[in-house]
Order: sequence, then structure tokens, then C-alpha cells
Amino acid sequence: MTAPVLQSKPVTLFVCTTCKRPLPGLASMAAAATAKTGVPPYDTPGHDFAAALAARFLAPDTIMVEPVECLSVCKRPLTIALSGGGRFGYVIGDLDPAKHLEDVVAGTKSYAATADGLVPWRERPLPFRKGVIARIPPIGFKQPEKSA
Amino acid sequence: MTAPVLQSKPVTLFVCTTCKRPLPGLASMAAAATAKTGVPPYDTPGHDFAAALAARFLAPDTIMVEPVECLSVCKRPLTIALSGGGRFGYVIGDLDPAKHLEDVVAGTKSYAATADGLVPWRERPLPFRKGVIARIPPIGFKQPEKSA
Repeated sequence: MTAPVLQSKPVTLFVCTTCKRPLPGLASMAAAATAKTGVPPYDTPGHDFAAALAARFLAPDTIMVEPVECLSVCKRPLTIALSGGGRFGYVIGDLDPAKHLEDVVAGTKSYAATADGLVPWRERPLPFRKGVIARIPPIGFKQPEKSA
Repeated sequence: MTAPVLQSKPVTLFVCTTCKRPLPGLASMAAAATAKTGVPPYDTPGHDFAAALAARFLAPDTIMVEPVECLSVCKRPLTIALSGGGRFGYVIGDLDPAKHLEDVVAGTKSYAATADGLVPWRERPLPFRKGVIARIPPIGFKQPEKSA
């Protein structure tokens, strides 16, 4: 597989830093901690995930990684969003930083390689297919009329 | 309550035309129809809803209504998206065209009255609060640093 050719129009990969990731493996410990200290059984891995991703997109890539507070999804942590340069914007959730770093890198590069943000379904990493939450058409988008 | 003052930068209200609305009231009839003709128990009210909304946003409003095919939500019909002019983009679902037309009109006007798309929570119509699916920061957005 050849590397996707990046388009010149930049892409921003937003990473939610407020997403709370439940920690089932720590459930009993956390439950104990909650009872005593009010610390709930989750962490917020967004900042670290954003930093790990940013380290993968160095110049001359036209991909910027931006940590942001809340993408209003909340129920499907960790959540990211992709947008930029007249492309459809995508929101993707259910991401596990420990498992999906390479998938997010690959998926973002494929996205950046498109002019409209529409990566063919089969070319999307599995977490991008399963985790898609919504998309927003680019500004000025008009649905093309179907040919007869 | 005074009418929101619209900002000059235009807003697009995208309305999904592929959203399938289940028809529970027709379930038994539809189930029978499905068995015989393959017609499933749903309709797709997006086109009609878009037309009803478009009739409410006439010049000089800076709000355009655009029917679009699929916002990739699907599980929470009917779905709309709002974006434009450097604002946060919002995706909102669970809308019932028969009940929520006025709410969508009011919510869209409030959105259009902001420069950044961030309508205060209490000023959002109830279906916009309950139905929010995701938001995407505007292009070029950087999270402001918190003051100490």
C-alpha cells in the first residue's frame, strides 16, 4: 500500500480532553477511592493522546493536532473530530489510546489525502467505521442532484 | 423575549433526507406490508421537513436550509446539522418534524445570532439540549488557555 498523498489544504485533528474513560480494571479500587475521596473510576486520556498524535504529524504534514474541551459526545470516549479545507467534518468515538493510535494516524492521513473528506468505506480503519458518530457537510455544500 | 439579532456571517441548516423514521403507529400494518412487498415500517421525512424549515427562513435572514444525504448518525432520526461562519458545528438528532419545527426555527436563529455557535445551555430549545449528538470546532480553532 502506498502512502496517501496529502492535499495542500490543511486538516485539523481535534482530540477531546474532557472525555472520561471508564476504568473497569480499576473498578473495585476506584469504587473504594470514590467512597473515601470522591475520585471517580475514570481517567481523561485526551491530553496524552493528543500529544502522542502530534508527535506523529510533523512538518511537512499539513495535519494539525488540537486538544479541545468537549465535542459534546461524552457517552463514547475517547472522541476525536476531523475537519478542514472544505472537507466533510467527522466525529469519531469509542477510541482507545492504547490500541488505536496507529489507526487514528492512518485514518487521518487518508482523510487528509481527500479533497472532500470522504474516504471510501473500505479504506477507513475499522475504528473509524465502527466509531463514526456524525459528519457535517463543509460550508457551502449543496447536495448534487442525482443523474437520471 | 426579544428576537435574536442575526450575525452577518451566514448559517447553513443541513437536514438529513436519508434518516429513516420508524412508524410505531403503523407497525402491524407495516409488518404485514413488509412481509408482502418488502416495504419497511418507516418513512423519510427529511425532504418535507427541510421544505417546511426553508419556508421559515426567507431573506433577509442569513440562514440557508440544505437537504443532504446522510449525516452518518442514522440511529437518532431525524438529524440536522448547523454550521457556518467560523462557528462550532452542531449535530442534533431525535427530532420529530410534527413536534419540533418551532424549536428548530428558534434554535437555529439563536445559533445564527452567535459569532461562535455557542448558545448558552439554558437558551437552547429542549430538543437541542436532549438531542445534541456532537459538535465540531470551527476551522482554525485553538482552545483558549485557562486563566489562573
